Amino acid sequence: MKTIKTNLANLAIVLHKPRYPENIGAAARCALNMGISKIMAVSPANPDREKMLKMATHEAAGLIENMEIYDNLAAALAPFQYIVGTTARLGRHRQALETPRELAGCIVDLSQNNRVALLFGPENTGLSNEDLKYCHIVTTIPTANFASLNLAQAVMIVCYELLMARMEAPSQDRFTPHLATSAELEGMYADLREALLTIGFLKSEEQEYGLNQVRAFLSRVKLLSRETQLMRGLCRQLKWFKKNS
Amino acid sequence: MKTIKTNLANLAIVLHKPRYPENIGAAARCALNMGISKIMAVSPANPDREKMLKMATHEAAGLIENMEIYDNLAAALAPFQYIVGTTARLGRHRQALETPRELAGCIVDLSQNNRVALLFGPENTGLSNEDLKYCHIVTTIPTANFASLNLAQAVMIVCYELLMARMEAPSQDRFTPHLATSAELEGMYADLREALLTIGFLKSEEQEYGLNQVRAFLSRVKLLSRETQLMRGLCRQLKWFKKNS
Repeated sequence: MKTIKTNLANLAIVLHKPRYPENIGAAARCALNMGISKIMAVSPANPDREKMLKMATHEAAGLIENMEIYDNLAAALAPFQYIVGTTARLGRHRQALETPRELAGCIVDLSQNNRVALLFGPENTGLSNEDLKYCHIVTTIPTANFASLNLAQAVMIVCYELLMARMEAPSQDRFTPHLATSAELEGMYADLREALLTIGFLKSEEQEYGLNQVRAFLSRVKLLSRETQLMRGLCRQLKWFKKNS
Repeated sequence: MKTIKTNLANLAIVLHKPRYPENIGAAARCALNMGISKIMAVSPANPDREKMLKMATHEAAGLIENMEIYDNLAAALAPFQYIVGTTARLGRHRQALETPRELAGCIVDLSQNNRVALLFGPENTGLSNEDLKYCHIVTTIPTANFASLNLAQAVMIVCYELLMARMEAPSQDRFTPHLATSAELEGMYADLREALLTIGFLKSEEQEYGLNQVRAFLSRVKLLSRETQLMRGLCRQLKWFKKNS
């Protein structure tokens, strides 16, 4: 086995609306098994630390003790620069899905100087289309016919693929850009919505659909912080132009 | 994603002395997620089917209902022709260990016309050296510093790698020999022990150590059924020779 040279300090598991504290604890154990030491929860249905700690085992107790809990997905994701969503479902209007193995190398590279969130949805429903809007990319774990994975098992496979990618291709000298944070992107999208409504490119009754079309391709671009500033300047200019035309 | 052409009907998960029925149920769910539909248990500490079924979920209930329970590892493994042990520990006198990813293609190929057991040890101790004697090969799941995987998580990763291998390289037309069963091998080793003691190659006080040395290399040979017969004939010949010399 090769030595692992990269570090995963920029990676965090984000569990959105997990129903069972046992799954949070089990996910923390999996994360630590694979070298990831940060876990966050958004609106957990039952934030029973005792039940979490029992499944986390003594070694991963620190992840639970340091776990940040949010009541809002946007706030939890705000500091992250790359957000990977996981889904079992292949709904309409979804981005093309890649496997964790296909993405792992890219995620490890990006995580060298970007904060990356690995986002998992609730046990019963998975991530909604609304949740997936925050994601730069969406991945699906391959399964046989019975596709419903336990939450912690899904966390394990994604973390395991990242560990394998680190072992196979340490690439800390490859160029990886500093991306815009989720907060910067959401600020940009808010300006964009306003500007596109102002100039009548978005109709108010269909603004969600129209903006999601724009988000769908912009999320794939891996925008830099200064590029979100550029876009926001463009939005201000559009509004100025409208007002003065 | 590619279509999966191979089948995993010859593969079974064998849990040796599992302590918690919840882990048996969770392992069954993982196995089915990845297309493996047979699970066996040897001397489970708590064979509470209700607790197993709860973790297995409705879909994997059939694996629990059809689960064979043995009180003896040799008997459980007897019909298998290739036995893959899993271990987290790197003790002395252990065979060189490969990762599940390195082995997956070979296991899928062999499973096309051989019964293959994927053997997992108890949660607290893992497989003992005595248990590993039955294994043709031993694999270790890569981890970061905290190497203690939950049992069902270990089952998941091995099964997941087999599914990935099936997706990446369906190879049902590759030649895969019919191997001797574990029962045939154990019969051969019993004859071999007796013959080697008879001729004084094994000293009675060190017979276990000496025989294990022989097992260590013979287990890597992938012996065919008729080759075990050949060896047993050779053993009879040795005893005859000793008696008549």
